Amino acid sequence: MHYLFANRMKNIPRSFVREILKVTEDPEIISFAGGLPHPASFPVDEIERATSKVLKEEGDKVLQYSTTEGYAPLREYIAETYLKKGLKIDTDEILITNGSQQCLDLVGKVFINQNDGVLLERPTYLAAIQAFSLYEPRFKSVPLVEDGVDSVALNQILTKEDIKLFYAVTSFQNPTGITYSTQRRKEVVEVLENHNTVFVEDNPYGEIRFMGHDLPPIKSYCPDGILFGTFSKIISPGMRLGWVVAPSEVMDKLIIAKQASDLHSNYFTQRVVHQYLLDNEIEKHIQNIRKIYKRQRDCMVSAIEECFPPGVEMTRPEGGMFLWVTLPEGLSSLELFEIALKEKVAFVPGEAFYEEQPETNTLRLNFSNSTEEKITLGIKRLGTAIEKLMHH
Amino acid sequence: MHYLFANRMKNIPRSFVREILKVTEDPEIISFAGGLPHPASFPVDEIERATSKVLKEEGDKVLQYSTTEGYAPLREYIAETYLKKGLKIDTDEILITNGSQQCLDLVGKVFINQNDGVLLERPTYLAAIQAFSLYEPRFKSVPLVEDGVDSVALNQILTKEDIKLFYAVTSFQNPTGITYSTQRRKEVVEVLENHNTVFVEDNPYGEIRFMGHDLPPIKSYCPDGILFGTFSKIISPGMRLGWVVAPSEVMDKLIIAKQASDLHSNYFTQRVVHQYLLDNEIEKHIQNIRKIYKRQRDCMVSAIEECFPPGVEMTRPEGGMFLWVTLPEGLSSLELFEIALKEKVAFVPGEAFYEEQPETNTLRLNFSNSTEEKITLGIKRLGTAIEKLMHH
Repeated sequence: MHYLFANRMKNIPRSFVREILKVTEDPEIISFAGGLPHPASFPVDEIERATSKVLKEEGDKVLQYSTTEGYAPLREYIAETYLKKGLKIDTDEILITNGSQQCLDLVGKVFINQNDGVLLERPTYLAAIQAFSLYEPRFKSVPLVEDGVDSVALNQILTKEDIKLFYAVTSFQNPTGITYSTQRRKEVVEVLENHNTVFVEDNPYGEIRFMGHDLPPIKSYCPDGILFGTFSKIISPGMRLGWVVAPSEVMDKLIIAKQASDLHSNYFTQRVVHQYLLDNEIEKHIQNIRKIYKRQRDCMVSAIEECFPPGVEMTRPEGGMFLWVTLPEGLSSLELFEIALKEKVAFVPGEAFYEEQPETNTLRLNFSNSTEEKITLGIKRLGTAIEKLMHH
Repeated sequence: MHYLFANRMKNIPRSFVREILKVTEDPEIISFAGGLPHPASFPVDEIERATSKVLKEEGDKVLQYSTTEGYAPLREYIAETYLKKGLKIDTDEILITNGSQQCLDLVGKVFINQNDGVLLERPTYLAAIQAFSLYEPRFKSVPLVEDGVDSVALNQILTKEDIKLFYAVTSFQNPTGITYSTQRRKEVVEVLENHNTVFVEDNPYGEIRFMGHDLPPIKSYCPDGILFGTFSKIISPGMRLGWVVAPSEVMDKLIIAKQASDLHSNYFTQRVVHQYLLDNEIEKHIQNIRKIYKRQRDCMVSAIEECFPPGVEMTRPEGGMFLWVTLPEGLSSLELFEIALKEKVAFVPGEAFYEEQPETNTLRLNFSNSTEEKITLGIKRLGTAIEKLMHH
């Protein structure tokens, strides 16, 4: 049979990370390539108790089909959590999704026609490029600076180009670890006010701030915007439970798209997570995750300061799971990757995170899923690899 | 803000069933409108034990991110189950999805360009119309007869029209309850051999045969085809676990689409279901579901024979959850719906199941989710409503 696939399948970039992860299956390799939360962030016993409880009390219901929108009390819980942060969201403006990855797909489905302008940060979340690519947009990108997006460049692009969506990860961005300052957040809102561009804000790491002060999502000042959230980084990524917040006009469309995609998200796990949230103090649990990640981040930052040669720069994230390294101009992180593998250490070369014209001297390091011992050793190995690359 | 949605959102039919289900929330109404499995089909205690086990033994792993393809031992289990039925499938040809509904979305994404020909049965599964609609195909339909698709008509359409996909529910179809006979299955394969059309076979109810003999899926004779399966009708629909079987060339694309859609299906529940399957005899459990559904089906068939006026026809399904009623020509099931609501009984008017030119004198009845008492009473009420419609 000669299969005729849809044209959209030609656009999608090969999953670079997927292929890298295969290479790094060697147990001797210390990998900073993945994006996995620390298993200590999974409340295993508490989830077991929550599961037993919902199955004992309402087994008939929790295993049955449910509504597309998601379990109402779970959506209410999410709305209340936002309210504590000063963000007033109606429960009906929240839809439960399969992780925040599905939010990308649903937003793509609902908004993007072929050749519509979609603006990404530069660099951006790899899987956002993949998800949106399938709707065949015209990508543009806007550079990130130390404290968020370059808002002058943002204004220029939105003025010059017809941009339907602007997608940004505003706190502890994947891949860079960069967080938008209060000033940058306000600038984004000001720029957006003059353009008919929908702001799509992804905030998977927002809870994992281990330094500095919490900042409200840009959605707080931008009621027309769309906001993604997830339980992946604070309860369990394997459960694939996230959500999208959107104004009701958009929500109506998202619900239609969600229903067509998979009817509804796993109801059993929605009930388990809700029960877990009722019976436990998640704030304490999150404090614990923050403590662990801060130690690991500090360990990585010190090790880099000690082991990397002069001229190599890095971000110093106040939260999240990643930091971003920039090699001196002219050096290639793809070449470094080959050398690093021989030194038994791995990372993701930066080019995976650009939809075009990659900065080839950049790389992403994950610190959330390695012990301090491994971080110290792995960064030392990586320093050696960089030295070798420089004197190649 | 003036939101500019994608053109594809204009094509999707409003969810009729969704709206009907809202009307029927009145507890006095006996509803045959839904499509819910009987809660007795949920192995609640066994799921609780399986959950405790996987969390105790591998809590760190089962709550973590996992692979896009799905848990390999679960896919092996599915392959072995097919093998017992004479269908040889490689584990790598199986991808775990969020219910078989997601298979529709992924197949749509991978194959359908705007205006591509997609052939549906007439009538067809409502949510397939919705899922495919978002990829803006040119729908065609082929009539069902008592024992499957009209294969002469099928051949004519495939000869005349350029059809990329033919989607069929081959056993105990939703909405009609019709099953393709061995003869019809072979005819379909013969017709397909002469055309470059991908056969997409959906088989959510295959295990729920309570009369007659099991028939192998058409995929058995048609290795180029795509086959969907699900745990929704035998373990739990709320867990949203299904799978798609496809030749490796197609699977490569499906995996890319799945990864972009939501990275992977709920890994925690994949592990729970696999543990459940290891520790229990699912065949016994399925036998139990079959017994219950057969009683309910027999009860509904007898009640219809007794209560419906002459000239009303019905299918007599050998499995599944639905039967299909055809009123005498000229009568409208939408009008019947209004009268029936006053009699406190509900169903889904047939027109929801046609992508165009509906047979307006048809209706779908679900028997899996009502007690025999309710079936007897509800069908009596519906008989009264039909009498009233006839003498309107």
